Amino acid sequence: MAGNSFGQLFRITTFGESHGVAIGVIIDGCPAQLDIDMDFIQSELDKRKPGQSKITTQRKESDTVQILSGVFEGKSTGTPIALLIPNEDQRSKDYGHNVDVYRPSHADYVYDAKYGIRDHRGGGRSSARETAARVAAGAIAKLLLKQQGIEIFAHVTSVGTIEAPNLEGNDLSALLQIREDNIVRCADPATAHEMIEFIDSVRKDGDTVGGKISCVIKGCPAGLGEPVFDKLHADLGKAMLSINAVHGFEYGSGFAGSELRGSQHNDIPQPKAADSKVFKTTTNYAGGILGGISNGMDITFKVAFKPVATIMHNQQTINAAGEASEIKGKGRHDPCVVPRAVVIVEAMAALVLADQFLRNKASII
Amino acid sequence: MAGNSFGQLFRITTFGESHGVAIGVIIDGCPAQLDIDMDFIQSELDKRKPGQSKITTQRKESDTVQILSGVFEGKSTGTPIALLIPNEDQRSKDYGHNVDVYRPSHADYVYDAKYGIRDHRGGGRSSARETAARVAAGAIAKLLLKQQGIEIFAHVTSVGTIEAPNLEGNDLSALLQIREDNIVRCADPATAHEMIEFIDSVRKDGDTVGGKISCVIKGCPAGLGEPVFDKLHADLGKAMLSINAVHGFEYGSGFAGSELRGSQHNDIPQPKAADSKVFKTTTNYAGGILGGISNGMDITFKVAFKPVATIMHNQQTINAAGEASEIKGKGRHDPCVVPRAVVIVEAMAALVLADQFLRNKASII
Amino acid sequence: MAGNSFGQLFRITTFGESHGVAIGVIIDGCPAQLDIDMDFIQSELDKRKPGQSKITTQRKESDTVQILSGVFEGKSTGTPIALLIPNEDQRSKDYGHNVDVYRPSHADYVYDAKYGIRDHRGGGRSSARETAARVAAGAIAKLLLKQQGIEIFAHVTSVGTIEAPNLEGNDLSALLQIREDNIVRCADPATAHEMIEFIDSVRKDGDTVGGKISCVIKGCPAGLGEPVFDKLHADLGKAMLSINAVHGFEYGSGFAGSELRGSQHNDIPQPKAADSKVFKTTTNYAGGILGGISNGMDITFKVAFKPVATIMHNQQTINAAGEASEIKGKGRHDPCVVPRAVVIVEAMAALVLADQFLRNKASII
Amino acid sequence: MAGNSFGQLFRITTFGESHGVAIGVIIDGCPAQLDIDMDFIQSELDKRKPGQSKITTQRKESDTVQILSGVFEGKSTGTPIALLIPNEDQRSKDYGHNVDVYRPSHADYVYDAKYGIRDHRGGGRSSARETAARVAAGAIAKLLLKQQGIEIFAHVTSVGTIEAPNLEGNDLSALLQIREDNIVRCADPATAHEMIEFIDSVRKDGDTVGGKISCVIKGCPAGLGEPVFDKLHADLGKAMLSINAVHGFEYGSGFAGSELRGSQHNDIPQPKAADSKVFKTTTNYAGGILGGISNGMDITFKVAFKPVATIMHNQQTINAAGEASEIKGKGRHDPCVVPRAVVIVEAMAALVLADQFLRNKASII
Repeated sequence: MAGNSFGQLFRITTFGESHGVAIGVIIDGCPAQLDIDMDFIQSELDKRKPGQSKITTQRKESDTVQILSGVFEGKSTGTPIALLIPNEDQRSKDYGHNVDVYRPSHADYVYDAKYGIRDHRGGGRSSARETAARVAAGAIAKLLLKQQGIEIFAHVTSVGTIEAPNLEGNDLSALLQIREDNIVRCADPATAHEMIEFIDSVRKDGDTVGGKISCVIKGCPAGLGEPVFDKLHADLGKAMLSINAVHGFEYGSGFAGSELRGSQHNDIPQPKAADSKVFKTTTNYAGGILGGISNGMDITFKVAFKPVATIMHNQQTINAAGEASEIKGKGRHDPCVVPRAVVIVEAMAALVLADQFLRNKASII
Repeated sequence: MAGNSFGQLFRITTFGESHGVAIGVIIDGCPAQLDIDMDFIQSELDKRKPGQSKITTQRKESDTVQILSGVFEGKSTGTPIALLIPNEDQRSKDYGHNVDVYRPSHADYVYDAKYGIRDHRGGGRSSARETAARVAAGAIAKLLLKQQGIEIFAHVTSVGTIEAPNLEGNDLSALLQIREDNIVRCADPATAHEMIEFIDSVRKDGDTVGGKISCVIKGCPAGLGEPVFDKLHADLGKAMLSINAVHGFEYGSGFAGSELRGSQHNDIPQPKAADSKVFKTTTNYAGGILGGISNGMDITFKVAFKPVATIMHNQQTINAAGEASEIKGKGRHDPCVVPRAVVIVEAMAALVLADQFLRNKASII
Repeated sequence: MAGNSFGQLFRITTFGESHGVAIGVIIDGCPAQLDIDMDFIQSELDKRKPGQSKITTQRKESDTVQILSGVFEGKSTGTPIALLIPNEDQRSKDYGHNVDVYRPSHADYVYDAKYGIRDHRGGGRSSARETAARVAAGAIAKLLLKQQGIEIFAHVTSVGTIEAPNLEGNDLSALLQIREDNIVRCADPATAHEMIEFIDSVRKDGDTVGGKISCVIKGCPAGLGEPVFDKLHADLGKAMLSINAVHGFEYGSGFAGSELRGSQHNDIPQPKAADSKVFKTTTNYAGGILGGISNGMDITFKVAFKPVATIMHNQQTINAAGEASEIKGKGRHDPCVVPRAVVIVEAMAALVLADQFLRNKASII
Repeated sequence: MAGNSFGQLFRITTFGESHGVAIGVIIDGCPAQLDIDMDFIQSELDKRKPGQSKITTQRKESDTVQILSGVFEGKSTGTPIALLIPNEDQRSKDYGHNVDVYRPSHADYVYDAKYGIRDHRGGGRSSARETAARVAAGAIAKLLLKQQGIEIFAHVTSVGTIEAPNLEGNDLSALLQIREDNIVRCADPATAHEMIEFIDSVRKDGDTVGGKISCVIKGCPAGLGEPVFDKLHADLGKAMLSINAVHGFEYGSGFAGSELRGSQHNDIPQPKAADSKVFKTTTNYAGGILGGISNGMDITFKVAFKPVATIMHNQQTINAAGEASEIKGKGRHDPCVVPRAVVIVEAMAALVLADQFLRNKASII
């Protein structure tokens, strides 16, 4: 049983390989009458597209999105929305030298083991190119959430061992402005500068480096999340872990929270003003989620990305026959994925939230 | 849309509240002709049951499991397996004092916000008592995996800031023996001793503390996992994050891997012996999973648990009207969940593996 | 991948075999705050239970239902509702003579072929006893629908070649009264009498006979049904065909409609009164469903049941080795299933409607 | 929750409207290494395409299919297969006169009621044009089944009251030849002639007429079908009822079987030859399915289609305001859908069989 769909009520199915004709996505379950802002969808894709700066891959893709169905006179119709993104700069021949060789820490070997077939034109389906389809679908989820007053903001908070300071509490639109003003997408200008210098030096070494992205969701009402398995943070975790190169997920207090005592970690609810319906706690170790259900506070989580496996060094490896082989450092790649992954993290978060928002409608009649 | 089922082909649905008549689980999709060892299932439940030592809750539950269907003459029949665990020591009256008050960092408020109803008899459905049903179902998944030569081993690797040394490479059955010889379920005797002392002191303070559990899966063949969303580690992550109190998940190199360079992090494949079909890499930063598919190496991951929210201190909070209220420290609880959670982690991992094992059968005809 | 669940948002999973300890069902997705009327659930089960009259099987089962979870102080809580019905009169030994023989037109052979295992105690999972669980769950779906003004009424409209007259347009509560006043559950007294005499004579012959059940759903709003696959009538059809012994389903004009011309078959919409929101057509060949979506008119369908396979005659058959064998006419059975199946048809219809009602909530925000 | 996907393991999701840019389908779960014969897929589409004869709609569509993903060097790769069919002859302006009017027995009103939006360019998503995507996906399912020795054959067995004789037992390839030699796709030449004459006269009247299609599946092994809800005939029934204009489904003895006695209806198993594994019964009232599981005999079912709603007569109706309105007979349509629906019935049957074939792989390890 294959696994190319995500979500239950706001459900996407993606298709396409890195070196095929096109990639794309069907969204089944987008409610009718939503304004579909094509410029916004394209602007989201532009944040993920390759070739945007010196610290991203130089593959050239305009990532121009086309709508094939589900939208009439600018509004969703309740029928499946199909989005298509043609591939333009496949250059499969770049990969001719790898036909028979498993690249270290790539998915070449496991696809062969699982499917008995080897699409040697780059990563095929395992390539992060597939995430463009997620970003397009996530943009529509964001439009749905915006209508409900829900905002999602992610940015790069570490590259290698360079960590950004905690920016919690700052105004989202200001942070967004700063983030988009630098090519590494960190909302702290000084750290951003340091990160860019570092990535550039890593690139010059022909090497790559990992990093982390933090995300905050504001305006989410209490009640989203479906215990006991489809808890809001469990779905967010799965969404993030399904992104290429992600090796870790934590929300609220995260791993550090495991070192605390209950008397330190408990978030104390604050009395409400007479006319307020909002639940507030003095601290937010819970990351806005209790028992798997949003409580109305900011939802916070962090995602760890390993370094990209494609490096410009020659590496030892094996071929399909199991024999020792050497692979040359060649091809186009990102020295660090996190700058382009910011919008992917946001897109996947938006897909989870849109899905859980619709699911929650059936909790009470 | 509710979320009380987990898995696609090996699919469980759990039911029951902490203070109801019983909890239980239906397994739909267990293949026919599997030997169902009831003693093994019960022994797994015994590892999770309350009251097993001074560092666990004193609630008394024998957690005796009954099979209602799906097994005939000791073998699974291919029909749904229903398992029932009666509740024995509910003592709902212990919770009479909390009827109108939201306990800090508990799910009381969010259940009320979501469902408009408050089951004030303890945690209701949000209680970790539900995980007994998972352990029972997970035991059957383990029987299936054992038949395939797949073994799962978890143990406590940190409590508060006390960390166990790396035991990778040690023999699993030896580690299991050590783990079961101490009440905290850490496979390193010296660390175990230190952890037990610490938890006992925390308990005497009327407080609680968090911790971490590490898990390794041995004998998993290459090919399990369904890209691009149902990647093996994404399903494992969701499974772990769905366990009560879990705030973080990482696999392979995890969060630390985000600090490395590609040239450090890439796992180099080793040439195979002439007659070997096994894929091996010199290091295992990948945690046995590439592109979301198992590669045949050990699968490794780590899970972070926050401290239990119920403490014996009085705490400020609010009532359903939003007014300030105080909650007394009272009731039965665990000072630290990780000793009892070890078998829950294993059970959820087993459920993911069994499901992905069955799913993989359709990859090639 | 097993198939013991039905529905997406109002989702049931049944378990249990005819000669096991108990049968039961979990409902996952029943909205919170619904009044759960246990007397009503039991009264529905009483309409299906065996031994109610001379024309039903003499197996004695009180079919007393217990609630294990999901209900607190008489209301649904939004958590899974588990219902248990113990088996009381299994008498497996009645089936000792059949251990090695495949009964004609029973599922003995195919279960053996599929699962490699033979539960020879009667029908095992293939027994219609499982439908008691559906009736219990369907009763809760009916409570949900009643709150929305949706009513479901089925009755027996044929036994063998005896056909009831068309009662369309009659008052539902009057029809229900007549139906429950006779043991065959036909809403026309004269036909009912004839049917009962006929079934009784068939029973005395040691034989069985088939029949048909018609169903009407009143008060269903326009908008239920999810094209293009989960059309309302497609889900109703699947629901009915999943009931034991059903061999045919038609809605609206049905098979006879295939003989008509468009100019005869088109239902002409009637102008609405100024303040009316109700859609009405002069005729209802559509059976209340257009393009798979309810239009607000009465939903009508018919279900055909084959004769019960267990007869009191000796029959030729084969054993597991493929050798000729004779099977004796023995055991307890219904001479005609339709009287007891009326409430099963209603239950499955209620489950479809409740599910589609919840699903439709996500069509527009 | 939308409903544009069908199948569990061999799962399709279709998209597109009658007057949009394109329609298409994603197949997720097609096993790897299947030979994808594009000529065969196109030849199947050609059997459904409009404009093939005087008794079909004159809309001109070449229905040329493109593969966007999932196939490499002529073989499936195990990744999603995306198929695209551009729309060529939309002529939306033909429908300008209907903007505000609900066409009788069309889905115009219910889409408006459900989604609050009206795509007035023909049927939009409710148009049978969507079934081209099903035929393309069904062709790939047929390739999978053919590899397993499973063949599917459907033909037109009635138009209006004209019924074809029973052709059971005839050679499939001979029947296929006859069927494809006439434009109505009935495998009996004399009846075909009569049907064509009749449809042509109906067309000249500006009217339409219904009909029935019968289907037989040969070579299906015992064991396919997943009780208790996803019975093989229940899934077939849903598949057929999801096709536009279908109002009835029966399998095996069908509606007529409800008139029989058990002693007439029971299929008697025949002793097996020493070396045979094949299960055979003297009769086949079961239609090759017992208890929802295939028994290895021919699977037989029949599907009833209502007459097309678009007629060339002027008709009374209402507009969106509920006021009386008249609709002119205009536009392009089929006088009778069954000739083009034969391949749709086969495609949907193939999708069910392929799905159940893959599902059955998990019944026993």
